[in-house]
Amino acid sequence: MRILSNQVIDHVGETIHLEGWLHKKRMLGGLNFINLRDRHGLTQVVLEDKDEIEKLRGLQIGTVLAIDGLVVKEDRAPGGAELHQARIDIIVPVNSEPPIEIDKPIPHKSDNLDTLFEYRVLNIRNLQEQKIFKVRACLLNYLREFLNNNDFVEIQTPKLLAEATEGGAEVFKLDYFGQQATLAQSPQLYKQIMVGAFERVYEIAPAFRAEPSATTRHMSEVMMLDIEMGFVSSHEEVLDMVGNMTSYALKKTYQAMAEELKSLNAPTLLLKDTVPKISVKEIHELYSKATGNDTTKEKDLMPDEEKWICDYAQKQLGSDLIFATHFPVEAMKFYHQVNPDDPSTVLWGDLLFRGLEIATVPLREFHYDKLVKQMEKAGLDVNHPGYKYYLQAFLYGLPNHGGCGFGIDRLVEKTINLNNVKEATLFPRDINRLSP
Amino acid sequence: MRILSNQVIDHVGETIHLEGWLHKKRMLGGLNFINLRDRHGLTQVVLEDKDEIEKLRGLQIGTVLAIDGLVVKEDRAPGGAELHQARIDIIVPVNSEPPIEIDKPIPHKSDNLDTLFEYRVLNIRNLQEQKIFKVRACLLNYLREFLNNNDFVEIQTPKLLAEATEGGAEVFKLDYFGQQATLAQSPQLYKQIMVGAFERVYEIAPAFRAEPSATTRHMSEVMMLDIEMGFVSSHEEVLDMVGNMTSYALKKTYQAMAEELKSLNAPTLLLKDTVPKISVKEIHELYSKATGNDTTKEKDLMPDEEKWICDYAQKQLGSDLIFATHFPVEAMKFYHQVNPDDPSTVLWGDLLFRGLEIATVPLREFHYDKLVKQMEKAGLDVNHPGYKYYLQAFLYGLPNHGGCGFGIDRLVEKTINLNNVKEATLFPRDINRLSP
Repeated sequence: MRILSNQVIDHVGETIHLEGWLHKKRMLGGLNFINLRDRHGLTQVVLEDKDEIEKLRGLQIGTVLAIDGLVVKEDRAPGGAELHQARIDIIVPVNSEPPIEIDKPIPHKSDNLDTLFEYRVLNIRNLQEQKIFKVRACLLNYLREFLNNNDFVEIQTPKLLAEATEGGAEVFKLDYFGQQATLAQSPQLYKQIMVGAFERVYEIAPAFRAEPSATTRHMSEVMMLDIEMGFVSSHEEVLDMVGNMTSYALKKTYQAMAEELKSLNAPTLLLKDTVPKISVKEIHELYSKATGNDTTKEKDLMPDEEKWICDYAQKQLGSDLIFATHFPVEAMKFYHQVNPDDPSTVLWGDLLFRGLEIATVPLREFHYDKLVKQMEKAGLDVNHPGYKYYLQAFLYGLPNHGGCGFGIDRLVEKTINLNNVKEATLFPRDINRLSP
Repeated sequence: MRILSNQVIDHVGETIHLEGWLHKKRMLGGLNFINLRDRHGLTQVVLEDKDEIEKLRGLQIGTVLAIDGLVVKEDRAPGGAELHQARIDIIVPVNSEPPIEIDKPIPHKSDNLDTLFEYRVLNIRNLQEQKIFKVRACLLNYLREFLNNNDFVEIQTPKLLAEATEGGAEVFKLDYFGQQATLAQSPQLYKQIMVGAFERVYEIAPAFRAEPSATTRHMSEVMMLDIEMGFVSSHEEVLDMVGNMTSYALKKTYQAMAEELKSLNAPTLLLKDTVPKISVKEIHELYSKATGNDTTKEKDLMPDEEKWICDYAQKQLGSDLIFATHFPVEAMKFYHQVNPDDPSTVLWGDLLFRGLEIATVPLREFHYDKLVKQMEKAGLDVNHPGYKYYLQAFLYGLPNHGGCGFGIDRLVEKTINLNNVKEATLFPRDINRLSP
């Protein structure tokens, strides 16, 4: 029976069977050993027998091996034990030298990113690189756990649409059995429709954006967590649900993945019981006062203010998360709800995490007549099939509702303190990259 | 504070606050009551005061209401209690009569399916219809739970590809910033690549198929669970992993959703400790003997045999699940592993569930040289960018591995005993339907 690397320590004094990849080979003459990699990490294997050493001659990193041997306690070895008296079986020989070194991570510097993605097939075999994606899977699981525990129903909505239905952003177009279709840039309209059934829904799915932006925060294919909840009494209720969900997933992941996050140099997690909220107007004032750079005449949040307020939240409020709220009405989308107490602002908050916006969290306009007016004002054809069904949900009754579009890739990026959203993605897609 | 319908019974004798949709209105003069719908079901509300009854005049099903009233025990009401002395607030009035009756499910007959999907926005407000999608979400959660517990890492792979990379099936094409891209028909090549990192991976994501088939089992957008596992000692190991996962998710869902499944008339679940396996050749023999219809000269499984063997498995083996194994080499794909003990067959099994194939479960060819030969034989250009990175994973060492492409929509369909995969999908896509 195959023993995994993390179980080796439990078998000291026994002969066990290992399977894995040749990960490192050190033939020093007197002392010869290899590292064997499996899904849980490395096992150090000491080679004593000349015939066994001979079997590995000319074989490269990546060679698939089965090894039988005796477990000996050894504090300096990974996992605290190593294998002696090894007998090696070559399962799949690798004869070509890999173009990158597998046991050394490619540094995540902006100059190296193209190399990182070009050699993704191999660099993902690096244990350090793998940790990023284990953290990612962990965050996803805790986000789902929170939502399931809070009565949200997981849904799946179509990615092939009759037409661009949100207006504004650019979409990919394709031929769909002779008619034109577009790829969904978000499940926005569908998740709002579903509030009419389940009140609380979520979806984790890819979204497609044909924006020709080459930045550190954009990709043409992103992984979004979309949430929508109905019968809310205030915008605050939605902000707090999203804030609590994020805090929960981060807290749990920092516990479950403590070792991985430490070795990835992830920052210490700073969280408050509730994510602090601060209006865009207040940010203008605080920022202007602190920097001498007057933004009080600005409406929307300036990029530098976004970074500054995150810094402020960490240092003054002890929080890695902060909501910027009450965005100016000039920036609104047709489905947003104008603030009834101040029509110059929208009931829309952005969740900022360590300098980056990771989620937009608005309330939606839920009155049919008002919504139709907002759509007409935005220049949309309310009779178009793309909107017809959406408006049906409102005509036949939707309660006050809100939710968020939450960027999973960005959450992972900032949890680990990476510099580019693509580093948090296995196979990123951008204007220049469509493979691997 | 808002009380939900399933909590009403806990508040007998108290005045509570409810919010929800007007779901049914019975104004019989002497006895006037309404049903209020929320995310947990219905609450019966008795209207005694004339002014309150007057508020609802002309208002239609779907109207969003807030109601305060006194909880009274009443065994004949849903949940065992009802609301008296109701005071109604109209939150969102609905003035148009819905085009379908919300409190009656649209029968799932083939003639009605088009109506079902045309009015999906409203018919999903029907409590019976909702159960299908609650069962779906439940199955998904238990599938994930099983995989997480078995060391599988959740991954996300791109849906925008450089080209059709599996050959054969038809793909959707799109313009990607000036170059041609295709939509992923499966994450096949990526999940195999990832075996080289995590050994065991899974992904739940949409897959896109441009096949112009109008059948009860095809859609152009499907939800697939893709699994891949490395270092397997046999095909049986993969079959058993997939079989055990399916049994686990079904068993747990039948427990958690007992009430929903009963009211949906889902069949009793028949499971064995291990999913039985039977070769295509054996099926030919059994079928020929039982029906007098000789298929022993056939190679591939005939559609009627697929149904027959499921019937046989239920009646003779007491199992809703059965694997048909050892498919003929004539049906193989380039990445399949030919059976070394019988080169006329492939190490490929189909998981059948209540008459329908829900997953294909093959071993993959993992030797670089053999794989290249199989690709060339299949007429593929091994130097194409779509294959170049894939082959890299093999050149630098992949162990014996296998996995499955598992149709989530089909699993849901057959769990509930529906007749068409589209009935298990919120917003199905086919050659004729691209909206809602």
